[in-house]
Amino acid sequence: MDEIRLGTEKTLVIASGRAHPELADEIAKELGTELLPISAYDFANGEIYVRSSESVRGKDVFLLQSHPFPLNNWLMEQLIMIDSMKRASAKRITVVSPFYPYARQDKKGRGREPISARLVADLYKASGADRIMSVDLHTDQIQGFFDGPVDHLFAIPLLADYIRGTVADDEVTVVSPDTGRVRVAERWAERLGGAPLAFVHKTRDLTQPNKAESKQVVGEIEGRTCVLIDDMIDTGGTIAGAVKILKDAGAKDVIIAATHPVFSGPAAERLANSGAREVVVTNTLPIPEEKRFENLTVLSIAPIVARAIKEVFTDGSVTSLFDGHA
Amino acid sequence: MDEIRLGTEKTLVIASGRAHPELADEIAKELGTELLPISAYDFANGEIYVRSSESVRGKDVFLLQSHPFPLNNWLMEQLIMIDSMKRASAKRITVVSPFYPYARQDKKGRGREPISARLVADLYKASGADRIMSVDLHTDQIQGFFDGPVDHLFAIPLLADYIRGTVADDEVTVVSPDTGRVRVAERWAERLGGAPLAFVHKTRDLTQPNKAESKQVVGEIEGRTCVLIDDMIDTGGTIAGAVKILKDAGAKDVIIAATHPVFSGPAAERLANSGAREVVVTNTLPIPEEKRFENLTVLSIAPIVARAIKEVFTDGSVTSLFDGHA
Amino acid sequence: MDEIRLGTEKTLVIASGRAHPELADEIAKELGTELLPISAYDFANGEIYVRSSESVRGKDVFLLQSHPFPLNNWLMEQLIMIDSMKRASAKRITVVSPFYPYARQDKKGRGREPISARLVADLYKASGADRIMSVDLHTDQIQGFFDGPVDHLFAIPLLADYIRGTVADDEVTVVSPDTGRVRVAERWAERLGGAPLAFVHKTRDLTQPNKAESKQVVGEIEGRTCVLIDDMIDTGGTIAGAVKILKDAGAKDVIIAATHPVFSGPAAERLANSGAREVVVTNTLPIPEEKRFENLTVLSIAPIVARAIKEVFTDGSVTSLFDGHA
Amino acid sequence: MDEIRLGTEKTLVIASGRAHPELADEIAKELGTELLPISAYDFANGEIYVRSSESVRGKDVFLLQSHPFPLNNWLMEQLIMIDSMKRASAKRITVVSPFYPYARQDKKGRGREPISARLVADLYKASGADRIMSVDLHTDQIQGFFDGPVDHLFAIPLLADYIRGTVADDEVTVVSPDTGRVRVAERWAERLGGAPLAFVHKTRDLTQPNKAESKQVVGEIEGRTCVLIDDMIDTGGTIAGAVKILKDAGAKDVIIAATHPVFSGPAAERLANSGAREVVVTNTLPIPEEKRFENLTVLSIAPIVARAIKEVFTDGSVTSLFDGHA
Amino acid sequence: MDEIRLGTEKTLVIASGRAHPELADEIAKELGTELLPISAYDFANGEIYVRSSESVRGKDVFLLQSHPFPLNNWLMEQLIMIDSMKRASAKRITVVSPFYPYARQDKKGRGREPISARLVADLYKASGADRIMSVDLHTDQIQGFFDGPVDHLFAIPLLADYIRGTVADDEVTVVSPDTGRVRVAERWAERLGGAPLAFVHKTRDLTQPNKAESKQVVGEIEGRTCVLIDDMIDTGGTIAGAVKILKDAGAKDVIIAATHPVFSGPAAERLANSGAREVVVTNTLPIPEEKRFENLTVLSIAPIVARAIKEVFTDGSVTSLFDGHA
Amino acid sequence: MDEIRLGTEKTLVIASGRAHPELADEIAKELGTELLPISAYDFANGEIYVRSSESVRGKDVFLLQSHPFPLNNWLMEQLIMIDSMKRASAKRITVVSPFYPYARQDKKGRGREPISARLVADLYKASGADRIMSVDLHTDQIQGFFDGPVDHLFAIPLLADYIRGTVADDEVTVVSPDTGRVRVAERWAERLGGAPLAFVHKTRDLTQPNKAESKQVVGEIEGRTCVLIDDMIDTGGTIAGAVKILKDAGAKDVIIAATHPVFSGPAAERLANSGAREVVVTNTLPIPEEKRFENLTVLSIAPIVARAIKEVFTDGSVTSLFDGHA
Repeated sequence: MDEIRLGTEKTLVIASGRAHPELADEIAKELGTELLPISAYDFANGEIYVRSSESVRGKDVFLLQSHPFPLNNWLMEQLIMIDSMKRASAKRITVVSPFYPYARQDKKGRGREPISARLVADLYKASGADRIMSVDLHTDQIQGFFDGPVDHLFAIPLLADYIRGTVADDEVTVVSPDTGRVRVAERWAERLGGAPLAFVHKTRDLTQPNKAESKQVVGEIEGRTCVLIDDMIDTGGTIAGAVKILKDAGAKDVIIAATHPVFSGPAAERLANSGAREVVVTNTLPIPEEKRFENLTVLSIAPIVARAIKEVFTDGSVTSLFDGHA
Repeated sequence: MDEIRLGTEKTLVIASGRAHPELADEIAKELGTELLPISAYDFANGEIYVRSSESVRGKDVFLLQSHPFPLNNWLMEQLIMIDSMKRASAKRITVVSPFYPYARQDKKGRGREPISARLVADLYKASGADRIMSVDLHTDQIQGFFDGPVDHLFAIPLLADYIRGTVADDEVTVVSPDTGRVRVAERWAERLGGAPLAFVHKTRDLTQPNKAESKQVVGEIEGRTCVLIDDMIDTGGTIAGAVKILKDAGAKDVIIAATHPVFSGPAAERLANSGAREVVVTNTLPIPEEKRFENLTVLSIAPIVARAIKEVFTDGSVTSLFDGHA
Repeated sequence: MDEIRLGTEKTLVIASGRAHPELADEIAKELGTELLPISAYDFANGEIYVRSSESVRGKDVFLLQSHPFPLNNWLMEQLIMIDSMKRASAKRITVVSPFYPYARQDKKGRGREPISARLVADLYKASGADRIMSVDLHTDQIQGFFDGPVDHLFAIPLLADYIRGTVADDEVTVVSPDTGRVRVAERWAERLGGAPLAFVHKTRDLTQPNKAESKQVVGEIEGRTCVLIDDMIDTGGTIAGAVKILKDAGAKDVIIAATHPVFSGPAAERLANSGAREVVVTNTLPIPEEKRFENLTVLSIAPIVARAIKEVFTDGSVTSLFDGHA
Repeated sequence: MDEIRLGTEKTLVIASGRAHPELADEIAKELGTELLPISAYDFANGEIYVRSSESVRGKDVFLLQSHPFPLNNWLMEQLIMIDSMKRASAKRITVVSPFYPYARQDKKGRGREPISARLVADLYKASGADRIMSVDLHTDQIQGFFDGPVDHLFAIPLLADYIRGTVADDEVTVVSPDTGRVRVAERWAERLGGAPLAFVHKTRDLTQPNKAESKQVVGEIEGRTCVLIDDMIDTGGTIAGAVKILKDAGAKDVIIAATHPVFSGPAAERLANSGAREVVVTNTLPIPEEKRFENLTVLSIAPIVARAIKEVFTDGSVTSLFDGHA
Repeated sequence: MDEIRLGTEKTLVIASGRAHPELADEIAKELGTELLPISAYDFANGEIYVRSSESVRGKDVFLLQSHPFPLNNWLMEQLIMIDSMKRASAKRITVVSPFYPYARQDKKGRGREPISARLVADLYKASGADRIMSVDLHTDQIQGFFDGPVDHLFAIPLLADYIRGTVADDEVTVVSPDTGRVRVAERWAERLGGAPLAFVHKTRDLTQPNKAESKQVVGEIEGRTCVLIDDMIDTGGTIAGAVKILKDAGAKDVIIAATHPVFSGPAAERLANSGAREVVVTNTLPIPEEKRFENLTVLSIAPIVARAIKEVFTDGSVTSLFDGHA
Repeated sequence: MDEIRLGTEKTLVIASGRAHPELADEIAKELGTELLPISAYDFANGEIYVRSSESVRGKDVFLLQSHPFPLNNWLMEQLIMIDSMKRASAKRITVVSPFYPYARQDKKGRGREPISARLVADLYKASGADRIMSVDLHTDQIQGFFDGPVDHLFAIPLLADYIRGTVADDEVTVVSPDTGRVRVAERWAERLGGAPLAFVHKTRDLTQPNKAESKQVVGEIEGRTCVLIDDMIDTGGTIAGAVKILKDAGAKDVIIAATHPVFSGPAAERLANSGAREVVVTNTLPIPEEKRFENLTVLSIAPIVARAIKEVFTDGSVTSLFDGHA
């Protein structure tokens, strides 16, 4: 039998939804390439249409989408894009969602709740995604929601290196805004040279109904510069409240550091007026001009995402970017 | 071995998303029951939370959702509700989507397009839906997109019976607004007593580039009352244009009949001013007050949906509701 | 760690079932290769045995099968071949079925009908097929029945180009033989330079039982050359009947064009005696000598299929073969 | 919330394909019920159409099909019936295939062979079957090919009880016609009161090419009545040859016993002329009149299948029908 | 058509692996039933054989297994039991694993780690489990690893009610032994009437290699009775170390409370000598006599598991057992 | 659009569990490479931890594990390794299990038994295995339990070639130790130049309860050298018993040949004292020093496995290694 043989090469394609074009452009630029040209628009009733104007047959596609408000829209757009790439014979589809949608609903806190973060993993799978890449998942366990490889990137090195520069002369305590983030605060404390830990928590007495709930700080913060950390800032209520509690409890200064600037509703105003010395975030989500304020610092996540994409494409090691963690 | 035995009975539960509560209430009333109490709300960044406040363990759940604008939001709400019901041990989950989302994107019209209607079926499946019920699918083939039973309900009997009453004294022609609905027009023609058929179509000459496209009517319509039919009216452009073409071509009168009142953007105004004698639709989608107009007639789909739910619950025959069709 | 590395290349393999060896040979010849040698035979009770006599490990296999009578036999042979290729470690298996089996049963026309066209897609998937390639699907929606890429090829350009040559001096009307093909007739009309449209349809009055059904033509055909189009010709009854109706209604001449020559039972005789000037089909199905007649023209689909296979193998664009459609 | 509750009951439905209506009728009669009325016919190109004329919603469906020649046709009919029952909302679908199709191709005897028996299990699953019931599988391992319950029925008790009656005065040896059935012969020997065993086998010397192959008997058969057993008789060549070898080696008499009368091609003639005293089979496959001969005894499998169906329907024990085996 | 109808009832069956027969017996007794008689034994090479000696066809099976050392053995036994129940036509299989195996490996802490807790969920699914029931999962997110309902039971009420009785006269602080359990400690604090919180943590400075790691307490514990909580006690090293740190830091007394008594290696000795006033655990895992010590209190989890099983069987609400949590 | 292209190559990685490091080393050496460095250890409660210390992204991984006692442990280790490779983005994972676990439980011998060999295939699949490679499966049908390619290697050529050398001067009979292996004995007989066949079997009379069971030989063995073959030797009871029966029946000499030396409990002693001239096995399972005895010959399977791995990696033909069988 005569056979037809062909040498093979692989081709990297970066495609992006419409939620955060600036980040997509930055990432493409870091990689020295351009975004796949895609026509995407909304029908009047909200249905979304997408179509690549170039062939993706046999390509290694990385499909970027950010998930700000209106989040469900961007998620559906992403699922439709995955479907179109699958049916257009893409070789492999890696979903790149810097801010994982519905990450907070990662368990049944009460009976009959959904586990929406697992649902999102299932929807990605059902649409045709082969792999997921995301940044600072709300809990590490979300990696296990997807039946396939998940590249989990970390913004902590980026944020912590920046903050280490700004607090060089301070006595620092790392503070978790609630009891659920103390483990992450511990990682921060290590990064900042073995800083002490503290956390804010709610007190409530279940045995005495109707007794009011109060908040208090556990740990040494008096006279110290508190680095108040979180994975995301949504409406800013908890975090701004924590700043006040820390200040009231004698903290010298508070710096807020978080990966995902959700910045819903009054968040920008609350943060600007919270009394924090600085608020440091990344651009995993777009921050419109009107939500920016004076002491806000935005660090770009693009170099980290771009390097991870390159490692994945070239069969290198993403783990090595983060000292063995992944 | 001692065994613990228990007589069994089954319980019908009707739950509804927030898109079209009036229709859900009507359906529940038709069935002589009440909707499952569900708390559902949006987080500030658009994420949706749902939770039933009553147990659905072992229940036969029918999960209603309509899909008006913003459609992606209502679809995600529905998927999250399915997930929550599945994890809450519902025995069976039947998705009731009177207007099937993304029904028009049911094929790859061009290379690299998604097949979003199939994707929606896959998302329902991935979330945990066992069955689907819908009304007047854009094409019958969508039934085949879901791997499981699909109960396909028809509004034609409802609409046609109404219209037969209003055109008793007219010489009627059934008109399809384009070449893709002629088969459906034929079904209407049979229902209306063997009325003649016509259709509007675009003429274009692919062999002569840039030659303008024109529209024309094929079939007998002069001096006749045209019943212009479609499955949905979105922005109303095509259908209003068809009214004008029919009138210009000598039609005596035009009545528009469609199942799904999407009514996006200028639809209501276009229809009101189209010159049509009457516009008849169902309430598979909510029609806000400002989109209603004088010669609009809205027939309730609730009795049909309620009867079908009852047949499904009691293991009766949905097919028998429609003379063998399903 | 020492690693063992190897440069990669990919190898195209064309394998064929026994239903239509001529077409398989033509396609292989177009590609400049030979068919994979396969031993295939029937056991006395009808069970089929297949085995490739050469290794297909790591190969990119295109598995051709045509589906004439006895169709179920050829379909099972194809499924068994897929299974054998999967278990023999083929890298990728693309099913090439020029005439998609059971394409007409693509919906539940009545309650309790199967959706056999979806079932066929599921059987291909269950057997191990990664992709499907087919020609002129009965409805475009069948693409959505398969969970994976479907390359949909079109014979219209081939047929229309031929017919344009034969009707250069005629005034042409494109005619659909029933109400379900008017959309396709419209595509033909565009290809033939903006020709007018007509269709034949059955009239029946559901409100008056037992009233006879009659057939009539809608559209301008008097004194014109009618190009009567369809996707397939099975027993030829409908299409031959349509020729008569068109002639009776004053058509000057009728040319029949269809992609799939199923030609069951009396089809050849009916077509030969129908009064049509010419019958033009492709060879997606074999036409035995005894079913050929004088004014039958058979155009080979092999060049189109071969080009599509080559595009798939080389990660080119199938869409580009058809001006963006796919 | 008002709930709608309903007492439940379950309903047994027996449906049958067209391959062996007599067996289906016998089974229904044993159960005291009638077959589901189904319209099934072939299109001219071999495509099969099926539709139940009564509702099967919520029913416990047992779907009988026998698999004589043309086997692929009957298998596809069965798959299409399963699909139609699934889409018609049957509660549970048990495939009843007394003669499991492609049971002999249950392994890769050589490289690149299919494992068609596993494929058949996958096709049943893909179509929507929940369970399988079959009689005397070619190898017990086929049970493991299906991901779900398989009720494996045995004809040995039926056949052995009959034969015990006919050989009461004989000195019996149980003979396997080849080396692969000795285990089964052992089971027979136990059933027949600890009779001795023998087998026929081919001798071939792989180290000396072209050396002819010869057959010989291992075990005591001289002057004895041999019960020559097999699971199926296809063309009858092997079994008729074994009769001759046994007779030549001094057997007094030979009785042939097999479950499945495939009886392809010259089988009936070969068996009739083989010199065997009697040939005993069941009716898992239809035996047309022209394939019946004088010393053929056909025992009905219907009572066994009917009892098993009843046990499955009433949640009894199928195992108990066969002294613990299943 | 005559139909065979049958009233339905459902039957609860409790089966158990061999890892912890006492707990299984207690649960069966609480439910007023007996365990399904199962023969289970090991082959000499470690392979496990299981078989129910009674029919489980159509039964609602709850399959208990505890997972002490050798854990992999008990897990495989459980998977094999699930397979046997599935193939024996059990109607529904609920896995009851009071101590979820591999719960600690619930994320990739470093690159290339497995997510064994997700793997276990997948193995349960692949074997045929429909539902899972477990007690105090290491993290709540494990619920999301299974594609189906998970009934998550809590021992906190049981443990906390007991401890509230023993510390009535003490000033209590709830202490987490590390930074990852502070959230759980908070739940305990609420249950114990709004007690203050503290935690022990490791300090390390990533910026200065080789710098020793030290442990310290954050929170008010001086002169107070510390309730040191955890989900499981494995080798007891961390928890005994925490007792020492608390004592050194001035705690008046320490009571240890944990759900799962893994008690590996030196655990019993460490705990007995740790200086803790009392160690309170449940019997989700068996505690052999030689691992029991004087101030150890073991509370039975059987009533909670039995009530949950009963709620599941009767379609009641498990959530209601835990004030809405699940 | 600028595209990033990259030439591709593939990389072979051999990883091994901890059950039989010698065999893994031998195989790696045969291939001229080294094993992937993996850290694997047991937690005190039996849970296993594994992690590759090098990246496997995009690699073609062959995952070796042998399955001696404690078999369940090694199987779970293997499943966890597969999971870790899958999540670490290995390109393809081939499970290499020379001795397939639970191969003997390949059918339901009695009602309610599991089919553990199918379960194992499902567990491999659920963990993420793409392919399986094994040696001398207990029955060939096990290949069909896995939904994907299975490379079935044979030790018969290795064993038979060795034995042919040692019995050059003998008159040989090939003996199956029971009725289930006669087919395999036939393959051996061919390999040994057309030697005669015999088998040992149990006699039992089911019609006379309590009648003792006795063993006897069928076939010519008197004065001959018997090659007693089996796929595995577990406790050695059956095989040692067969030696005695053969000797008692007049055999001159007995040589035992088996692929898998399970050697449980008293096996070594039984074999050493059985009276067999020689016992020949391979090293698919480790044989500890204390289980070796004087007339035991162990042939290495490593060259066969290594060649097969190489064929798979280079897309060659495994079948060709075994004259067409596979």
